[in-house]
Parts: sequence; C-alpha cells; structure tokens
Amino acid sequence: MSEKALQYLTDNRNQLLTKLNEFLSIPSVSTDSVHKEDVRKAASFLEEYLTEIGFKNTQQIETQKHPIVYAEYMEAEPEAPTVLLYGHYDVQPVDPIELWESDPFKPEIRDGRLYARGSSDDKGQVFMHLAVFEALMKTTGKLPLNVKVCLEGEEEIGSENLYSMLQEKKELFEADFAVISDSGMVAKNQPTILYGLKGFTGIEITVTGPDHDLHSGMYGGAVRNPIMALSHILSSMKNKEEVVTVEGFYDGVEDLTEEERELIEQVPGEDFVKATGIPETVSEKGYSPKEHTMARPTFEVNGIYGGYQGEGTKTIIPTSATAKITCRLVPGQDPVDIQQALEAHVKKVAPKGVTVEVKKEKLSAKAYKVEPNHPLIEKAAKSYTKAFGKETVYVRMGGSIPVVEWIEDIYQMPIVLLGFGTPDDRLHSPNESFPLDSFDKGMETLVYYWNEVNKL
Amino acid sequence: MSEKALQYLTDNRNQLLTKLNEFLSIPSVSTDSVHKEDVRKAASFLEEYLTEIGFKNTQQIETQKHPIVYAEYMEAEPEAPTVLLYGHYDVQPVDPIELWESDPFKPEIRDGRLYARGSSDDKGQVFMHLAVFEALMKTTGKLPLNVKVCLEGEEEIGSENLYSMLQEKKELFEADFAVISDSGMVAKNQPTILYGLKGFTGIEITVTGPDHDLHSGMYGGAVRNPIMALSHILSSMKNKEEVVTVEGFYDGVEDLTEEERELIEQVPGEDFVKATGIPETVSEKGYSPKEHTMARPTFEVNGIYGGYQGEGTKTIIPTSATAKITCRLVPGQDPVDIQQALEAHVKKVAPKGVTVEVKKEKLSAKAYKVEPNHPLIEKAAKSYTKAFGKETVYVRMGGSIPVVEWIEDIYQMPIVLLGFGTPDDRLHSPNESFPLDSFDKGMETLVYYWNEVNKL
Repeated sequence: MSEKALQYLTDNRNQLLTKLNEFLSIPSVSTDSVHKEDVRKAASFLEEYLTEIGFKNTQQIETQKHPIVYAEYMEAEPEAPTVLLYGHYDVQPVDPIELWESDPFKPEIRDGRLYARGSSDDKGQVFMHLAVFEALMKTTGKLPLNVKVCLEGEEEIGSENLYSMLQEKKELFEADFAVISDSGMVAKNQPTILYGLKGFTGIEITVTGPDHDLHSGMYGGAVRNPIMALSHILSSMKNKEEVVTVEGFYDGVEDLTEEERELIEQVPGEDFVKATGIPETVSEKGYSPKEHTMARPTFEVNGIYGGYQGEGTKTIIPTSATAKITCRLVPGQDPVDIQQALEAHVKKVAPKGVTVEVKKEKLSAKAYKVEPNHPLIEKAAKSYTKAFGKETVYVRMGGSIPVVEWIEDIYQMPIVLLGFGTPDDRLHSPNESFPLDSFDKGMETLVYYWNEVNKL
Repeated sequence: MSEKALQYLTDNRNQLLTKLNEFLSIPSVSTDSVHKEDVRKAASFLEEYLTEIGFKNTQQIETQKHPIVYAEYMEAEPEAPTVLLYGHYDVQPVDPIELWESDPFKPEIRDGRLYARGSSDDKGQVFMHLAVFEALMKTTGKLPLNVKVCLEGEEEIGSENLYSMLQEKKELFEADFAVISDSGMVAKNQPTILYGLKGFTGIEITVTGPDHDLHSGMYGGAVRNPIMALSHILSSMKNKEEVVTVEGFYDGVEDLTEEERELIEQVPGEDFVKATGIPETVSEKGYSPKEHTMARPTFEVNGIYGGYQGEGTKTIIPTSATAKITCRLVPGQDPVDIQQALEAHVKKVAPKGVTVEVKKEKLSAKAYKVEPNHPLIEKAAKSYTKAFGKETVYVRMGGSIPVVEWIEDIYQMPIVLLGFGTPDDRLHSPNESFPLDSFDKGMETLVYYWNEVNKL
C-alpha cells in the first residue's frame, strides 16, 4: 500500500510543488490586520484542497478573528484509530523586508531549498500532510485510519480562539491521538522525535519618568533616567552566568537526570556559532548550550526602546523606556505563576523617581513531555528511519506550541510531534526556507506512519 | 540715551514682533539635510537685518556646512570697548510633531508666551540683540560700543565648523569681551548671571550577538542576549545612588566648597517635580538635585533600542542593541579623557558571547567658569536688576555651550552669559515658547548694559 502512494508522490511531484507554491504565495500574516483577507484566502485554499481529496464535513469554523479549517475522513476500516491532525496556515510577519533575497511571498527554489515565508513554519509541513492524503486516496481509494483535520490561522499570534473552540466543539475534534508537524529535526535529514516542548509566558515592562522629554543639561542630576532604571531592573532579573535571579522562577523545575543528560548527549550537537554568527556560545552555569536550549527555562528580552533612536545625538532625558520579555518554561513551571513572580520582582526592585508598569502577555503555555517509548512514538521513529535511513534521536526543544498543552489538557490524548524542519530554515527571520529533502522524505515518512498506526 | 532707545522699542513693539515671527517661521533645522536651504534663508534674514541696522562688512562666511553670519560696527567713540556677540540661528528638530499644539514654525502667542521652535533657543534671544541695536542706531545714530556679530547655524549639531573658523579668522573676531544670550534665568523674571557651564562628551555603545534575529525557542540558552548584555554594561556605569561608577570619571573634579553651596542655596529652587511630571526627584548621593544639576557631572542615556519594538510579542533573540550616552562635565574633567575612561570601562565589563563597539561622539566641550565679581559681570547684574526689579542670582548651569570654551581657549577674553530663557520654555521639546516679559525686559536690560560697559 505504501508503494503505490509513494509512486504517486514521485510522479506528481511537480504539480504538488506548484500547488504548494500557490499556497505559499498567499501572505497569510495573522498579526497584521492589513492581511485579514489573505489569511481567509489561505483558509479557503485548504478547504478546497481537502474537499478535492475527499474529506467530508469540510468547513471554516468562524472565530473572533481568523477561521479554523475543519475536515474529516471517517470511512477507515472498523478497528482503525482516529487521528487529530493539527497545523496552522498563518505565518510570521516578514520585517525587515530589506534583508530578504527574494520576495517572501514569491516562492523560489535555490540550492535544494524552497524559500518563502511559511515554507517551514508551517504551511510547507501542513501541505505535505494533505499531499500524502491525496496520494493515499488516489491510489487506494481510502485512508488507513480516520482523520480529523484542524488547521488554525492564529498560531503566530497566540492561538487566541483555539482553546475555547477545542473545548466548545470537544466532540467534533475528539480522537485517539494527535499529530503535529510544526517543529524541526536537529539536523537536515536527521530523524527527530520531539518528546518535549517548553512552555511560554511573557511580560512587558514600561518605566516612566518625566511627562515630556527633558533637556539633559537643565534636568540631569534631578531626575531618574528611565532607561537607566530599566537597565537596573533587567540586570537584576538575569545575571551574567545566565541564571535567572527572579525569586521563585526555578520553583518546581526538575533537575536534569543522568538519563536525560545521556539522551541529550546522543543528539548531534548543532554548531550554534556557525548557525547564528555569535562569537561564542553562552549558557546557564552548570549546563551546556545543548542542555539549556533543550531542557532549562529561559528569560529573553526580545526588544527594548526608549528615547532618541535617530542619527547623531539628542541630549534628552527621555520620558520612558520599555522592554518586552518572554520566557520559555519547562515541566514544573506554571506560566501564570511565573508572570506573577516576574511582576513581583519588578515591583520590588523598581527604584524611586519613576513609575513602573508591568503588562502581562495574554498568551501562555505550560511545558509538555511524553514518554519516548510510547507505541505511537516508537512507530513514528520507525517510519522516520525507514524514510531517512538513519536512527532516530529523541529531543526536547526550546520552542512552545500552546496547542499541545491545550490538547493534553482537554483530551488527555497522546500527541506525536513529527516535524521536518531543519536548523537552517531561519524561522521567524528573513529568508525562511524548507529543504526539498524534508518535503520528499517527510511525505514518505507519513505514508509509512499512517500504514503503521492503523495496526494499533 | 537709554530712554530714547527704550521708547523706540515700546513704540515699535508690534513691528518688531512681526519681524521676529518672520525669522521664527523659517524652519532652520540644522541636523536635517532636508532643511539645508531653510538654514541658509535664516542666515540671509540676519544678513539683511544687520545691513538695515547699519552694520558693515556684513557677510555669510561659508563653511563645510551652514554659513556663519558676520557683521561689525566699529564706529563707536575712541575709548569704547569691542564686544563679540555670539548666537545661533539654527534650531532643534521638532519630533515628535504630534505633541505640538500649534505648528512649530507658525509662531503663536498664548498666555503671554511666544510659541515656536527656536523662540527661546536661540532665535528669540538673537533677535532681541539686533532689535536693541536697531533702537540705539535709530534714536542716537550710533552704538555705545563697537560690536562684532558672529551668528552660526550649527550650534544644535555641535558647531562643527565654528572652532576652526574662529581660529582661522582670529583677527576678524577679536574683541575685548564676548556676550552670549543662549541660556536661561532660574525662574521667569528672575535676573540670573550664569557664571559656569558644564562641559560635554558622548559615546554610543552597540552590542552585537547573532548575525540575524533568532527564534528564541531554538537558540534561547545558547546565545548571549545583546539587550541583556547592554543592560548589564549600562548598570555597571551608574548605580542606583546616581553615582557614576566608571573608573576615573571623577578624577580632577573639585568638591563643592561651602561658599559655592551657599551661592547655590540662594538660587530659588525650581519645582522639579512640577516642571517635569516625575514622581519625585533623585540626585547623586550627598548632593541635592539643585547641587547636582548645577555643579556635579552627569551620565545620561539619551536613547536605547534593539530587537522588536512593534505591537504585541515577537519571540526573538535580536541581533543587536544600542545605547546613546552623553555626559555633562564640570571643571577638572577633560572630555576626551572621559570618553576614553568610558570606553575602557565598557571594554572591561563587556561579557563573552557578544561583540561590543564604542563610537565616540566628535563634539565635546570642557566646562566653563568665570569669577562672579568681574566688573563686566557686575555691570550685567546691575542692568538686569534695573530692568527686572529684582536682585540678581548667580548660577552654574547643567547645559553646555561649546563655543564658550572655544572662545576662552582662542581669545582668553571674559564671556558674559546674559540669558533670558525660563525653565518652562521647553527647550528641545515640543511646544517650545519664550515669555514676552523676557522679550521686553530683556531688551531693556541690554540697552542699560551697553550704556554701562562703554564706561569701562
């Protein structure tokens, strides 16, 4: 059964790539209201494709923002399980546009990679799943298991409406297990089972001093500078050994066991210096960069601004300064508790002479972890190895996928994270791309996997 | 002699205000190349006005950027001294424009104040001098002393070309003493002799980590965050007691003597909280806000930026972060030495994992101080008191006027800082204004002063 579908994918590769390019060309940037209609257009693309393939009950579920595309195939053999396939069709913004070598929404293949915003995160991977369903339907007239498809348009902006929709329509989305392809392999063509994800939480700190920019000659010496105050606050939250010094931050965080350290050890190290251009790596005291990125919490300042940013000098004491902070969490940390700990710390260290405001980011997620030897996980590893010709490694990754936590929370079903991205994909950056090897071998993996799990 | 000129100023007040508005309407923003021709237009306005008044040898001295307007009146009585009048006709940029209540280049009078960019700093005050010369010439046919006028167009951007011009044309500008009206009174209608100015120096620190924005999930834990690194660097340079903690910063700084503390005490305190909107004042440990603003050095972060500044969140580790810093210096501090001390400190504390670059701001100035009991100073105090009806106070101010240091350096002549601005003028901010009381009584002061000093 796998062979015919694989042959179909090979024979129709060009048409499938053409169709994928059509999907990638839609600028479905969820954070930007200018692209509201484009997001909807991408949803419609999926709706049509799913209908063509033979899915039923295909619909766009309206939310307060972008629609969720739903479709189902419930005609598998009697004992076959039901899988919930989750993915997202929205993409990150493209700025800074001037750093892109080609138009982010005019896909181009260069050196074996498909360049476009969303080619890896997540439209390329979503498309692969649909192409595999098309191949199986066209060659065998059926799918090896029942499939419920849930594709949302708000992942990049926090999946605001997904949780309530999953709760509200619990019966509709109910399944035996879930599969998500929105992550990456540790290296190109290296089968990777993601058995853990980090959680997520964030705050924004604004320090305000004077009510208008001040002449620094007239008032320097009487006024607390908001930028200096913010610098002191931030410096008190993480030290130079990369240890977060906010009280309560590490409460409940499990130490890394010897077994975990060994699993981590087996994962091929990424050349962080080469991939990022930094002079050298830096990580939490007592942990290697690999251990910290995979299994320790982080505290990151994503942006900072205040005062004069133009050319040359402007001798002012600015009115305010703001820092945007997000934290990646590990099992044992509750995102709301962490937010409160951050806020309490900021309020405690805030100096006199300024007012300090903490805004709590709405979106958050707990960390996620599944046992590496779960049957569904083992079969995924087997399918990967068959397609890519390499032993599978097991990793915990630094990113967050809030939907994973919510699915576990609402359905308590196993979630298989089957990603095909690679470290050089440049997610969230200019010149995002996806290797064609991932495209081809990834679809092959999925063909094997669906045929494996229907035996469960 | 004073009476006739004073009567002239009263009789012609409307025409003079109309002419001043014409001058203020020219957007002579020196830092912005878009306004290059406007700056020249403002120079031409002055050239024409000076010629009308009866000055000779009137010219625009070309420099590498904006012209210096020169003119002279050398026909005073044989024993009369020669004064060099310095001022500037360029103005600060207006951003943020949305905070202005009226167009910055369409002067408006509201509640006894003239609102326009440059009304206080410095076009209003320059115009006052010319109006007084006009009044004296029209009523007495001569001026009580010889006058050399030097009006530049680059003060707001560092007077790049002035120093070399003053040196090159030393004979042209040579005089017995200099007068500058580019400063303020400690309160509206409070005669103020400015007997000290702070110096100035600046640097820009840029911390660079990765060569592109990174996904904070993938790389958080392996990479030093440039914003955090910059925060640590800045925090190490000034502590929460507002003491600068850069090695060598206070070398050579004289302690405040008891006499100085008393002089400072006599200066009416400004209500800093009311004037600025801050919750409370903050100053260097051991010094009051008044003492710190007037007579202690400062270290100010004028602007900071790095990473994502838009709406919502963007989960990146940014490529870099930059802070712009300027310091106000006191006698005993050399601006170049201070820059070197700042740079050495930054290099010393720069952490691993990032590269740190320090750019040195070209423009700089030493602090300036003259004895309060100098005859020229005493006569200024007397003229002020006659016009404003109050005892004069003696202050050292936090601002810098590089030309003061240069004049002292090249000519070693006394410099009288005779300013008419007030604390609410909002220099360098939106809604700059100048009180009409300063306009009227200031010109009166000058009429008295010129008639006083010719007796020396």
